Amino acid sequence: MMTWIAFDADDTLWENEIYYQKAQDVLQDLLKDYCSPELVNKTLLETEIMNVPSYGYGIKSFGLSMIETALLLSDKKIDGDKIQSILEIIKEMINTPIALLPDVFDVMRSLSKNFRLMVITKGDLLDQERKFRNSQLSPFVEDFEVVNKKEMDTYRSILSRLQIPVQEFMMVGNSLRSDVLPVAAIGGIGVLIHHHLTWEHEKLVNSDLQDFPYYEIDGIKHLPGLIEKINLA
Amino acid sequence: MMTWIAFDADDTLWENEIYYQKAQDVLQDLLKDYCSPELVNKTLLETEIMNVPSYGYGIKSFGLSMIETALLLSDKKIDGDKIQSILEIIKEMINTPIALLPDVFDVMRSLSKNFRLMVITKGDLLDQERKFRNSQLSPFVEDFEVVNKKEMDTYRSILSRLQIPVQEFMMVGNSLRSDVLPVAAIGGIGVLIHHHLTWEHEKLVNSDLQDFPYYEIDGIKHLPGLIEKINLA
Repeated sequence: MMTWIAFDADDTLWENEIYYQKAQDVLQDLLKDYCSPELVNKTLLETEIMNVPSYGYGIKSFGLSMIETALLLSDKKIDGDKIQSILEIIKEMINTPIALLPDVFDVMRSLSKNFRLMVITKGDLLDQERKFRNSQLSPFVEDFEVVNKKEMDTYRSILSRLQIPVQEFMMVGNSLRSDVLPVAAIGGIGVLIHHHLTWEHEKLVNSDLQDFPYYEIDGIKHLPGLIEKINLA
Repeated sequence: MMTWIAFDADDTLWENEIYYQKAQDVLQDLLKDYCSPELVNKTLLETEIMNVPSYGYGIKSFGLSMIETALLLSDKKIDGDKIQSILEIIKEMINTPIALLPDVFDVMRSLSKNFRLMVITKGDLLDQERKFRNSQLSPFVEDFEVVNKKEMDTYRSILSRLQIPVQEFMMVGNSLRSDVLPVAAIGGIGVLIHHHLTWEHEKLVNSDLQDFPYYEIDGIKHLPGLIEKINLA
């Protein structure tokens, strides 16, 4: 019997990747004298992935990687006012109001009556806390965790601290790599909700984990039905 | 009787501000064709403080503020290779090995035998966790908190979550503004350990709190003696 349901935040509860893609479109435009849009995308993704160990996740990391990409692709010839534009994009992203995904509010409110809910998200502490505070979801959520990575040990450590048996734990998110497979691999229930935009890096799955079974639904509105089925099984 | 002792991290347990000041020296040099070193310091501090609500604390925030300062003071004329140098400074700061301050290891080890110890630090989650992991202090520390600000409510919320009565709580740090006065104001024991380098922003004290009494020592080695005195009183 499940007692706890954990949710990823970005692109599971609220829009996120869409803002990154818009920023990337602006970067393509800023660099159009130097290279193709495809090369901007490719180099930015490589730079971001290379910088994860130093910078972690989140908008500030993304911003620093955008600047690094702009310098690299322009052979450091990019104008100061274009760097300034990148700084402005970052601040605009930080100040973008939160947009909950469809059905999230109602499903969270309803599930919170029978289950204990938590949110487990990667990214920047300040930024994630601000989004959570503005999401109106906090009355339904008992525990909010911002972590640096989402691996098997990350989940084990949260479960151990909160004394949750793994078989009573479900994790719901849009990333197989971060939300679903590591939880399935330690004996919890992983549920994938596909989001039409998912960061490329989240699609790189650890091949050791790819055989663990998980559930997949095509919108959070199907979650209550899935839970009912699992609990009856 | 005290049960818990909390420590600030940067410039209380390990060196931190010294690396920021070194980075600032390099920035002065990068901008020497445009303005005086004094103007660099003044503008950078103003930019950092202005950016705290959006960026929070930590090296990535500092890096973005350095780039913004460079653009502002050069009227956006600064060369790409100087922006590149700023990116390199940031990565170098992130990868600087941790240097514990004198006596920290021995005092923490010794206090952990009779008290429960925690660390409460502002800044970047990834960065602070890396520093803590590399500090060798984790065997002595029961709880490690990274927060976005250190105000009365921040401390109240940690104490409430861990069910610690405020009169059993001591907080030790190098910032009157963040570590000492808010704790004294809610009824805990605040201890200031002066560090020869303290970020200017931390010297701006909330004047509502400045009359709350606190202790001051000139090195962590005096902390066990102070605690003994307080517990005897």
